[in-house]
Amino acid sequence: MVRGRVIALSVTDVRFPTSSDQHGSDAMHTDPDYSAAYVVIETDATDGLKGYGLTFTLGKGTEVVVCAVKALAVHIVDREFEEIVGDFRRFYRQLTSDGQLRWIGPEKGVVHLATAAILNAVWDLWAKQEGKPLWKLLVDMDPQKLLSCIDFRYITDALTEEEAYDMLKHGKLGQKEREEQMLKNGYPAYTTSCAWLGYSDQQLKELCVKALKDGWTRFKVKVGADLPDDIRRCKLVREMIGPDNLLMLDANQRWDVQEAIDWVSKLAEFKPLWIEEPTSPDDILGHATISKALAPLGIGIATGEQCHNRVMFKQFLQAKALHYLQIDSCRLGSVNENLSVLLMAKKFQIPVCPHAGGVGLCELVQHLILFDYISVSASLENRMCEYVDHLHEHFKYPVTIKKAAYMPPQVFRAGCWIFN
Amino acid sequence: MVRGRVIALSVTDVRFPTSSDQHGSDAMHTDPDYSAAYVVIETDATDGLKGYGLTFTLGKGTEVVVCAVKALAVHIVDREFEEIVGDFRRFYRQLTSDGQLRWIGPEKGVVHLATAAILNAVWDLWAKQEGKPLWKLLVDMDPQKLLSCIDFRYITDALTEEEAYDMLKHGKLGQKEREEQMLKNGYPAYTTSCAWLGYSDQQLKELCVKALKDGWTRFKVKVGADLPDDIRRCKLVREMIGPDNLLMLDANQRWDVQEAIDWVSKLAEFKPLWIEEPTSPDDILGHATISKALAPLGIGIATGEQCHNRVMFKQFLQAKALHYLQIDSCRLGSVNENLSVLLMAKKFQIPVCPHAGGVGLCELVQHLILFDYISVSASLENRMCEYVDHLHEHFKYPVTIKKAAYMPPQVFRAGCWIFN
Repeated sequence: MVRGRVIALSVTDVRFPTSSDQHGSDAMHTDPDYSAAYVVIETDATDGLKGYGLTFTLGKGTEVVVCAVKALAVHIVDREFEEIVGDFRRFYRQLTSDGQLRWIGPEKGVVHLATAAILNAVWDLWAKQEGKPLWKLLVDMDPQKLLSCIDFRYITDALTEEEAYDMLKHGKLGQKEREEQMLKNGYPAYTTSCAWLGYSDQQLKELCVKALKDGWTRFKVKVGADLPDDIRRCKLVREMIGPDNLLMLDANQRWDVQEAIDWVSKLAEFKPLWIEEPTSPDDILGHATISKALAPLGIGIATGEQCHNRVMFKQFLQAKALHYLQIDSCRLGSVNENLSVLLMAKKFQIPVCPHAGGVGLCELVQHLILFDYISVSASLENRMCEYVDHLHEHFKYPVTIKKAAYMPPQVFRAGCWIFN
Repeated sequence: MVRGRVIALSVTDVRFPTSSDQHGSDAMHTDPDYSAAYVVIETDATDGLKGYGLTFTLGKGTEVVVCAVKALAVHIVDREFEEIVGDFRRFYRQLTSDGQLRWIGPEKGVVHLATAAILNAVWDLWAKQEGKPLWKLLVDMDPQKLLSCIDFRYITDALTEEEAYDMLKHGKLGQKEREEQMLKNGYPAYTTSCAWLGYSDQQLKELCVKALKDGWTRFKVKVGADLPDDIRRCKLVREMIGPDNLLMLDANQRWDVQEAIDWVSKLAEFKPLWIEEPTSPDDILGHATISKALAPLGIGIATGEQCHNRVMFKQFLQAKALHYLQIDSCRLGSVNENLSVLLMAKKFQIPVCPHAGGVGLCELVQHLILFDYISVSASLENRMCEYVDHLHEHFKYPVTIKKAAYMPPQVFRAGCWIFN
């Protein structure tokens, strides 16, 4: 089915002025302009299909990612598409292990974001060529073929290819029923739209009222800039949503280790399910310390949106440093690397609760979490996918949310995400 | 003394075709073209002094770092120089915590390399304005002033500002004698020039003979591509240098955890002091596992040249994952971040053995290691600085090596590094 030779890759710097209304504002990112490096690949096949991929950015620096995409393009242009996805592990490693480019990574920061944008476009085109939405391409894929997309380098001490194969094989049991369940009810979501840090109390209240009316039962609040302010806002949101709905907190890396423990302890009375990104995204051992200290308060640790590769996730799992694993569809090396993380999470029995929002992240990550449920985790316990209500109007096929759940995209030939 | 307003920052993409002769070749970087993003800052002061800084790259991708430097330039151009170095911690955090740019890092990969290039130029200019080589500026600096250059964010669970102050205060004892000792004997070095992976056995032999004649007693060999090949090369070098000289091995991240243990065990008979970068630079816990397994063989772990920030170094130290800490002058956020790592290494009693080579790394890092000995560690036990004999001819003030030791640069008004 796979066809064509890649004849062109183009990349665009797309920016939205979200900072003007404080959408997306948090303790460390006070003025984000949601943006993307947006990649389109074309082949010489006569079907006219193109692959669209993006990586999410916050405004300034998008041009740096665009520059990195151009540097990596040499690895994809003029290649048979069959050669790329037919030995996808090899192609993944070519992008991530280029003997010169890896020095400015490796597998982290700008080059890895660029890698994600390119690979997201490859997966989009592959799904379109197969005439399926991406989640369905993954769900239908033979375990051996799925494994051939994953680079196991540096993670074999936590997950071998053989273990991964057994998991995927086991995941085939009951797959059909779970797929039908997803098509009927969708995948549970939570909302971050109500409580950005820059919003006024009045805005918070109004947004909570509206969200409750729309059926939302899980709410995330940004914290970390000012403790009295956090106490007031958490109290307000808890009052608005009542004692039975879920409340999550997100500090966006604001604290040092001890500071995180002290601060979050003072918010424990509002019964948060988790504290997200309490400290540096690189601080595995710090997260483990915080996790241990907050466990008696019943507060879990969530992190991952800035966890830069599978080697870091491996260690977060090994060190028992998180309770909720938040994959990102653009921070990691696209579907390929996310597959390895989903499988490691399954092995360590940690629920995956993806990061979304920004621009295009909801559109992207829904495919991964649908696959995770249908073919890997087979569980909805303690699981939910983030949802943020911004910028969907710019997509040709925006996500569909019904009763606070992601409804699986079913558009024939729309792999995933396309700007209007 | 500090003066002027920064009126311009320029950045150049400088490349050397080192790959043509396999200089610098290792198991993961088979064809490096030693390159740099080279920054020059100018002020409106009438002294005509400029600040020169660089970050090292391997060829492709230098243009991406150049792009990132341009994105960061907004933070320095039009600023009073006194405002920059007068509250250097604040300036450091401005560069590394830009609310939009930090998304594509934070403090890692391309943006952090760009940060290093800019800050290296700032330190160069500062040293020149003070009329001292950089190491001397640092050695003479008041402990409180030194601390004000360091961002302690995310490391206070391992090192508080108070502890750091006490260390620096204590480091003043005997400082004068150590400075005189350095001026007389220099800082001990080891050579990596003899055994790049792409060199033939004949080349290896000839280079060993020459190095021994020049007084070298410590030698590093690249390994990791092929085990029989490694055994042959290690045997050859050990025979050439004899049983009493030091042999170090460097795998440049080639292996998975168990693979590293198995492979290095088979090289133990050649009595290497350390194995460098056995696996992913991100794998703290993996290094700890390898360290534990190789300890009975008397082989230590060295790593750091791709350790991307102080948070990672903190954890390597906390997890007892390394025995030799290899700072890099361009991978970390310049002198500022390296100061925090030198102090953490002192606290954890781990010797610092800097990474050098490439282009300009020897010229840069000599200042840091001289400061480390004179003002922090006060010890030469198990310590040595890497030296590689390439591309020094392109510098106006290249390093001076005498009897396998770095001689402290003393050029008045030459802070550190200037291309011809």
